[in-house]
Amino acid sequence: MTYVNEHYAKLRSSYLFSEIARRVQAFQSANPAARIIRLGIGDVTRPLPPAVIRALHEAVDEMARAETFRGYGPEAGYEFLIAAIAEHEYASRGVAIGADEIFVSDGGKSDSANIQEIFAPDSVVAVTDPVYPVYVDSNVMAGRSGPPDESGRYAGLVYLPCTAENGFQPPFPEGPADLVYLCYPNNPTGAVLTRPALRGWVDWARAHGAILLYDAAYEAYIRDPEIPHSIFEIEGAREVAIEFRSFSKKAGFTGTRCAFTVVPREARGRTRGGDAVSLNALWLRRQSTKFNSVPYIVQRGAAAVYSPQGQREVRALIDDYMENARIIREGLEATGLTVHGGANAPYLWVRTPRGLGSWDFFDRLLGDAHVVGTPGAGFGPSGEGYLRLTGFGRRDETEDAVERIKTRLQL
Amino acid sequence: MTYVNEHYAKLRSSYLFSEIARRVQAFQSANPAARIIRLGIGDVTRPLPPAVIRALHEAVDEMARAETFRGYGPEAGYEFLIAAIAEHEYASRGVAIGADEIFVSDGGKSDSANIQEIFAPDSVVAVTDPVYPVYVDSNVMAGRSGPPDESGRYAGLVYLPCTAENGFQPPFPEGPADLVYLCYPNNPTGAVLTRPALRGWVDWARAHGAILLYDAAYEAYIRDPEIPHSIFEIEGAREVAIEFRSFSKKAGFTGTRCAFTVVPREARGRTRGGDAVSLNALWLRRQSTKFNSVPYIVQRGAAAVYSPQGQREVRALIDDYMENARIIREGLEATGLTVHGGANAPYLWVRTPRGLGSWDFFDRLLGDAHVVGTPGAGFGPSGEGYLRLTGFGRRDETEDAVERIKTRLQL
Repeated sequence: MTYVNEHYAKLRSSYLFSEIARRVQAFQSANPAARIIRLGIGDVTRPLPPAVIRALHEAVDEMARAETFRGYGPEAGYEFLIAAIAEHEYASRGVAIGADEIFVSDGGKSDSANIQEIFAPDSVVAVTDPVYPVYVDSNVMAGRSGPPDESGRYAGLVYLPCTAENGFQPPFPEGPADLVYLCYPNNPTGAVLTRPALRGWVDWARAHGAILLYDAAYEAYIRDPEIPHSIFEIEGAREVAIEFRSFSKKAGFTGTRCAFTVVPREARGRTRGGDAVSLNALWLRRQSTKFNSVPYIVQRGAAAVYSPQGQREVRALIDDYMENARIIREGLEATGLTVHGGANAPYLWVRTPRGLGSWDFFDRLLGDAHVVGTPGAGFGPSGEGYLRLTGFGRRDETEDAVERIKTRLQL
Repeated sequence: MTYVNEHYAKLRSSYLFSEIARRVQAFQSANPAARIIRLGIGDVTRPLPPAVIRALHEAVDEMARAETFRGYGPEAGYEFLIAAIAEHEYASRGVAIGADEIFVSDGGKSDSANIQEIFAPDSVVAVTDPVYPVYVDSNVMAGRSGPPDESGRYAGLVYLPCTAENGFQPPFPEGPADLVYLCYPNNPTGAVLTRPALRGWVDWARAHGAILLYDAAYEAYIRDPEIPHSIFEIEGAREVAIEFRSFSKKAGFTGTRCAFTVVPREARGRTRGGDAVSLNALWLRRQSTKFNSVPYIVQRGAAAVYSPQGQREVRALIDDYMENARIIREGLEATGLTVHGGANAPYLWVRTPRGLGSWDFFDRLLGDAHVVGTPGAGFGPSGEGYLRLTGFGRRDETEDAVERIKTRLQL
């Protein structure tokens, strides 16, 4: 008899986006003339930069000729892309990352979901609250938790509440924690970790023998020159951190799929017998056994992001989204709403007015302004009382949505 | 203290291809004038079909315009690709597969490595010997085995020896087995399962409450109209089988990355409490939590394989590789060697002459004919005494290699 992985049964059904869809659908049916604007989406809307498009076309042509055709590529990615990443993402910031420490992949989602496989099944996992659900779900599926409680928190996981009261800065775990997932700039709060705060985390991990799983998928949105883009800008991080990066939000690759993960040679875990084991070697083994890298075409497209033209175009793309974020933030603040984030991140974390619940504010925004946000409660109990908006929409729609909120929302 | 997944330490280092590289390197250094031909590679060499190239270019252009740009796609793949797969791979053979039963992915390697996650950690796993190492390694990493013995067999796994004595047909497991990996047409032996043989496996799985994990990555190479291309051509398979398919060898996608897995709605496992659980629902949850689908561009390229032009071009591609296989088979047989496979598969499984070991024959072929094969022992103990050659080389090199074997190999 074949038995299933019963840990899956613990998972709360991810009702957030289906519930949003249901409410939007119901509203649209009742108000067929309403032109609804989605301002809560986490997906990009601008086309790929021309430098990337050209590189993709050239790579497609290479695949058309026997002399330049590419079959299986190197399992951790092509040297041309890895070298460009090492140079432009790290060396340019004074951080030395070796080619054998960079693993190209199809997405930050895959990597941040798969990384837990190389750790012991009984590792204690800490996550922020609110949180990107993949960190939690992948560990629940692997059996590192008990069932969820009423609020959605799983037994055995350590939650680090991030609220206005602590400036959305995660407190250190009070008890033991082996693996800590940190995502900064943060989805959904838009908060960042300053250099001293990040140094505090590295020091904490070193003192506690923990590993930090640092998701920097949104680093390209950092404006403040004092905010680190990589955890490896912090001394000592190479022993205790793994970093996830992505071309998704940096260069519009959500539908083109390319990302990378950095596992330094010095990062180590232990066996029960007390031996140190290289996490780099474990991840290499994981990836080379279970993955066959990213399409050659896509790797060429990603490398073009680092050409001078690509760099300019990507900066313009991000400026554009950040201008949306500014428009939303200033518009909502003008109505008296409290808005966090949006300064070094594409996400705006809007406090619901007068103690309204996340879903109540969602309904109000939809009903009054025909604007769709994402209820903060969907990201965890500490997200209750917030709504997530993003700068990823079209400019005209973003302006229109803000104008409607200013003029129609009954607070 | 962060502990690692200690099951990784059980893995035998995959020395096969590095050892081949070492020996080839040593020979080339000692014989700098020798022009070595690789006839053991498992990668394709012909460019992508023109229909695919055109579709890729068109999709790249779509990504260049805001109106046609695509961000995150449906997690199990775009409807246009899923519908084409259902029609051309299944309905055309009289097999009804629903759109919600097809999961598009980045590779058969990923899917066949990841599928074990949805089953209980103590499931008993059966594999053929010789075997594609991913089935074994992914289960060792998940803790479903003890350490390997001298011959490389892991304690706790069930091995089904496939040799000339049984016509390379896997015997049913003698003891219990919950999950059985079958790859037909087979890598590395080139053997196929006839319809009665496959029916026997489906009946066995139904009688024993087991699940068959059927890897049909090479089905496009089947010539004999009596050989099933899909396990779902067998009545009753929908309750007990999951099928892996790939565009890699079918259409030259090894460096372009697209595959799919079929999990029928009727396929079920059990909880310890005795409840039936849909494997389709578990796999959907696994994929939507840990994966973000395949690049839109690549999905368009894959769909073009099913256009009338794509179908013709892909058939020509496969005919070409199979003609290589014929040339190798007939050439080697003319020298008195015994050759299996190559009739409904791109793989040729050559018996080493006069009881030579796999590696000894490898050395002889390299030394005498400057031709590189893959020692069968690298695929498992029952591969000892065999060498794998493939039809994936270039035609001129294949002909040249066969001529050298005929004229220079001292048997």
